[in-house]
Amino acid sequence: MKASIITIGNELLGGFIIDSNASWMSRKLLDIGIRTSLKITVGDDKEEILKGLNIASKSTDLIFCTGGLGPTIDDVTLETFCEFIDANLEIDESYLEELKERFERRGREMPDSNRNQALIPNKGEVVTNPIGSARGVKYNENNKQYYVLPGVPAEMKEMMESFILPELKNNYKSDLKISTIRTTGIMESALHDKLSDLISDLKDVEIAFIPGFMGVDVRLVSEDTKRIEHLSDKIYDQMGNYIYGEDWESLEEIIGKQLREYGFTIATAESCTGGLMSDRITNIAGSSDYYLGGVVTYSNEAKTTLLGVRNETLISVGAVSEETAIEMAQGVRKLFQTDIGVSITGIAGPSGDTPNKPIGLTYIGLDFSGDIDVQKYIFSTDRRFNKELAAQAALNLVRIALL
Amino acid sequence: MKASIITIGNELLGGFIIDSNASWMSRKLLDIGIRTSLKITVGDDKEEILKGLNIASKSTDLIFCTGGLGPTIDDVTLETFCEFIDANLEIDESYLEELKERFERRGREMPDSNRNQALIPNKGEVVTNPIGSARGVKYNENNKQYYVLPGVPAEMKEMMESFILPELKNNYKSDLKISTIRTTGIMESALHDKLSDLISDLKDVEIAFIPGFMGVDVRLVSEDTKRIEHLSDKIYDQMGNYIYGEDWESLEEIIGKQLREYGFTIATAESCTGGLMSDRITNIAGSSDYYLGGVVTYSNEAKTTLLGVRNETLISVGAVSEETAIEMAQGVRKLFQTDIGVSITGIAGPSGDTPNKPIGLTYIGLDFSGDIDVQKYIFSTDRRFNKELAAQAALNLVRIALL
Repeated sequence: MKASIITIGNELLGGFIIDSNASWMSRKLLDIGIRTSLKITVGDDKEEILKGLNIASKSTDLIFCTGGLGPTIDDVTLETFCEFIDANLEIDESYLEELKERFERRGREMPDSNRNQALIPNKGEVVTNPIGSARGVKYNENNKQYYVLPGVPAEMKEMMESFILPELKNNYKSDLKISTIRTTGIMESALHDKLSDLISDLKDVEIAFIPGFMGVDVRLVSEDTKRIEHLSDKIYDQMGNYIYGEDWESLEEIIGKQLREYGFTIATAESCTGGLMSDRITNIAGSSDYYLGGVVTYSNEAKTTLLGVRNETLISVGAVSEETAIEMAQGVRKLFQTDIGVSITGIAGPSGDTPNKPIGLTYIGLDFSGDIDVQKYIFSTDRRFNKELAAQAALNLVRIALL
Repeated sequence: MKASIITIGNELLGGFIIDSNASWMSRKLLDIGIRTSLKITVGDDKEEILKGLNIASKSTDLIFCTGGLGPTIDDVTLETFCEFIDANLEIDESYLEELKERFERRGREMPDSNRNQALIPNKGEVVTNPIGSARGVKYNENNKQYYVLPGVPAEMKEMMESFILPELKNNYKSDLKISTIRTTGIMESALHDKLSDLISDLKDVEIAFIPGFMGVDVRLVSEDTKRIEHLSDKIYDQMGNYIYGEDWESLEEIIGKQLREYGFTIATAESCTGGLMSDRITNIAGSSDYYLGGVVTYSNEAKTTLLGVRNETLISVGAVSEETAIEMAQGVRKLFQTDIGVSITGIAGPSGDTPNKPIGLTYIGLDFSGDIDVQKYIFSTDRRFNKELAAQAALNLVRIALL
């Protein structure tokens, strides 16, 4: 079973939007054992969409289209798909009534253009859209399964999660088991070296290293659950603390679970990351239970007045130093009266470096109920990279401290 | 002149990485008047890459491949491209020496696998990689121009910016002028309505609305610079303050320029956004000149002790209220001694709502040298969306106040 994904929209070709739909879909499909072998992006253009459908249906069995189901004249996906499967569009009167009622409830008259969204092909089935007005289409021909879905990410995801993925999981019982082990703080080559004995002796398990921006995922694929578990155990033995989670787990999710489990609270003091660490921590619903707050001390004065970093420290060793990182962590823990205080101070770039302090130099401090730790890193020369890498390293330091 | 982009890599198909290369490339190409009409993603697989090359070369004149040029056995792009253009791979002895020297300088011996990176096709030209070891290839046949580039974003971008884009700009003199006007705070349909008179009377200018997550871009394309300028002026007249910038400008870049121009300083107080606003402000190099710092007050206690929000306020109207937003803005301005204090308090979700306060309810407060403003919004039901939309709205409020 091979899948393909056709994403449709001029905005995707103009580069104004990063196409995250296709990534999300292929990862979700892989979770149920279906591999995506092709992704195509075309504009809102009949000819191009037809070309995409032809290419995709030639080489794959499961074809997803997203985008171009809106109410405006640009949106030609549905009529093009009808042409492709030789169907006609018909008005769905009951859905039209429903749409009108929805607008009425909001005290507005339905614009004429929305009538289009009540059109459905006279072949195939409708896929309900629980949170939007553009419905999807499901169609099967010659053992090729097609799904046509809207491009709005929240709507597409809802429809996939509620209807399509459960259905696929049932119908196409895949024997493929997939497990992803997520690591951070170790390079792909070093990870590879550490696991080389295991790799040379694989039986019926496929192993892949997926280097990402902030860590390397190790993906295990096999038809034999036992073998995956066995190998997974061995990888845990070898890699220990480099592993932070599995499958879709994020570092902020993991530390959230840890903090909740132990009943600890945390506060953050950030300089070069400018709030990115706190942004990540607060992406987790319910984080207010353990995250009390943070400060972004971008000036030296803020470091002294808010966090109590000593003037002597700033003068003698500077804002980007072990000592400042420690005093920031201690200061923010005191300020918010938490169990843990974590701090980041560094040189994000592109300027601000000195002969002894290169761009990317970063110190991360930790005050865990009075136990102090501080780590030094030299990241990259890119400002945004440095912010991302520093926030990741700080979260990881918290995770390890909580183990 | 139509371009296509083939991105190559199993990790892209597995959905573990969002393919931002293709978006970046198509936008940069559009800046010099070249449209991308097709994007294809395939795995590290000879047959699939060949399929991609065949499809792309049939419908476009300018074909970019990225990815799969690394040193390991997975990386088959170069040998596949050679097969496609009927060339042979030869070892480039002088580059091999250079690679060896590079490793020596870092005190390491070059692994055997890196030898592969000294291979070049005996047709076409090498594209230098100033920051990595995987070089690119440039090849022309039957008026089709091919570029094969590494997949590491920083390397691909450097090679595009340094060599390929300037060359393309010279060789394929496009008469297409493109201008993008960026708006925020107005829906696509409302924007469309406001500009409907202009749209109905277009002459030799193509107009496109590109709705993004946090605003709508209006793109004007024409061969006639004068016409673009003329239409652009009219759009500015109609849209006024909804327009925040042009082309690649971001809101944080714009307010950075404004603050610098007037010599004002700013501080942030965030609740539901958890530091996202300060993260965006500090993405701008040199932001420490005007951004003194911020606080993330995730608990009520932090709001009172750090920002001086009154207990009575929190008790009588709650943390998500006009009054709290104002007191937070005033408090943070006082705390950091800045010209501007800006605050965000809201209910990000998925829980925390009450009968009177739905998820998405957000107040943004502004204290500009004592002048107070506060705005109420109801965003979405999605936690991350609410954070993004609130940070965007707050930055936009600062921009408008600074006009």
